[in-house]
Amino acid sequence: MNRDVIVNFDVLNKDALLIVISGPSGVGKDSVVKELKNRTGQFHFVITANTRAPRPDEVEGVDYFFVSKERFEEMIQRDELVEWAHVYGDYKGVPKAQIEDALASGKDVLMRLDVQGAKRIKNLYPEAILIFLLPSNEEEWNRRLQARAEEQGTDLDMDIRLKKVREELTALNIFDYAVVNADNELEHTVDTILAIIAAEHHRLVR
Amino acid sequence: MNRDVIVNFDVLNKDALLIVISGPSGVGKDSVVKELKNRTGQFHFVITANTRAPRPDEVEGVDYFFVSKERFEEMIQRDELVEWAHVYGDYKGVPKAQIEDALASGKDVLMRLDVQGAKRIKNLYPEAILIFLLPSNEEEWNRRLQARAEEQGTDLDMDIRLKKVREELTALNIFDYAVVNADNELEHTVDTILAIIAAEHHRLVR
Repeated sequence: MNRDVIVNFDVLNKDALLIVISGPSGVGKDSVVKELKNRTGQFHFVITANTRAPRPDEVEGVDYFFVSKERFEEMIQRDELVEWAHVYGDYKGVPKAQIEDALASGKDVLMRLDVQGAKRIKNLYPEAILIFLLPSNEEEWNRRLQARAEEQGTDLDMDIRLKKVREELTALNIFDYAVVNADNELEHTVDTILAIIAAEHHRLVR
Repeated sequence: MNRDVIVNFDVLNKDALLIVISGPSGVGKDSVVKELKNRTGQFHFVITANTRAPRPDEVEGVDYFFVSKERFEEMIQRDELVEWAHVYGDYKGVPKAQIEDALASGKDVLMRLDVQGAKRIKNLYPEAILIFLLPSNEEEWNRRLQARAEEQGTDLDMDIRLKKVREELTALNIFDYAVVNADNELEHTVDTILAIIAAEHHRLVR
């Protein structure tokens, strides 16, 4: 066979992918990312900086970098963040160094971001794959939002959260995939996300 | 929570998908489709009509409809075929009734087509998902083509096949995914195809 009939295997997307796990408040982004971390070593995880107090089970440098508001405002001033947001009175954002290290690692990069953050990442990295998590139904979602509000705040906080959820849902059109994260179906959610990532590695470059 | 914050779950693609398994001669399309059939009941398989003689392990109405050239030419005249091709002196094609029944079944529809057929299907059904099978390397491919030529034909046939492979590779740009079907890795090929199909069910409608 002549050399000129060889398939150009470069059509296959062998590059590391940038994958964003997002979705509205209370949908379970943290649990999904934690389960992905437990299940496989195939990802480089980007750690987000956060000014809120750690929850009991959260570990510095693993779940988040917990920094003071003063330090965070300094990072904003120095343009050290790829994206940041002011959420429920706290700052949250991705340090540039984190994402650049991640992309250089050669592994698929996985980020957990709120919807606002996902939007900014898509503008910066149009090739990013955005996965939107959904609750399986309205009742389930309402229950999770209530639980989160009781854990953290007040009735006012609940109103702010509901307003935010409405805003977040308008962003659905920038996402590539939607996955339902139903109660007690975390394994299935993670299976689906892993299938999406496997499939994306076989998509042909257009 | 007000009703207007409900997610519109119609953004999820719950419709049955039309999936085409294709790729150049000798890449193992038949084995892959057979293994998909063995592995899961989730698909409706479209049966192709063919005028060549059945191979020893092929079953009428399961692998193909084996019809005479006269009958096939009648089907062409009566416009009973979605697509057809004249391949190595024989006719091969998909009866319209087959694909229409399949789409009405509500199951994902799976078709094995040569590259020419895949092109025609993409024109007729732009939403079809086209998967291109590749050999893992040139040597493997050459060996398979030789084996097929020895099984069926002559040296001349081998030349025709090589010319055809060159043509077929130019069609790669219409495909959505490429999957390597390596020797002794059929399980892995099929795992990847099933992941692609799972992922496609979660793609957001643009």
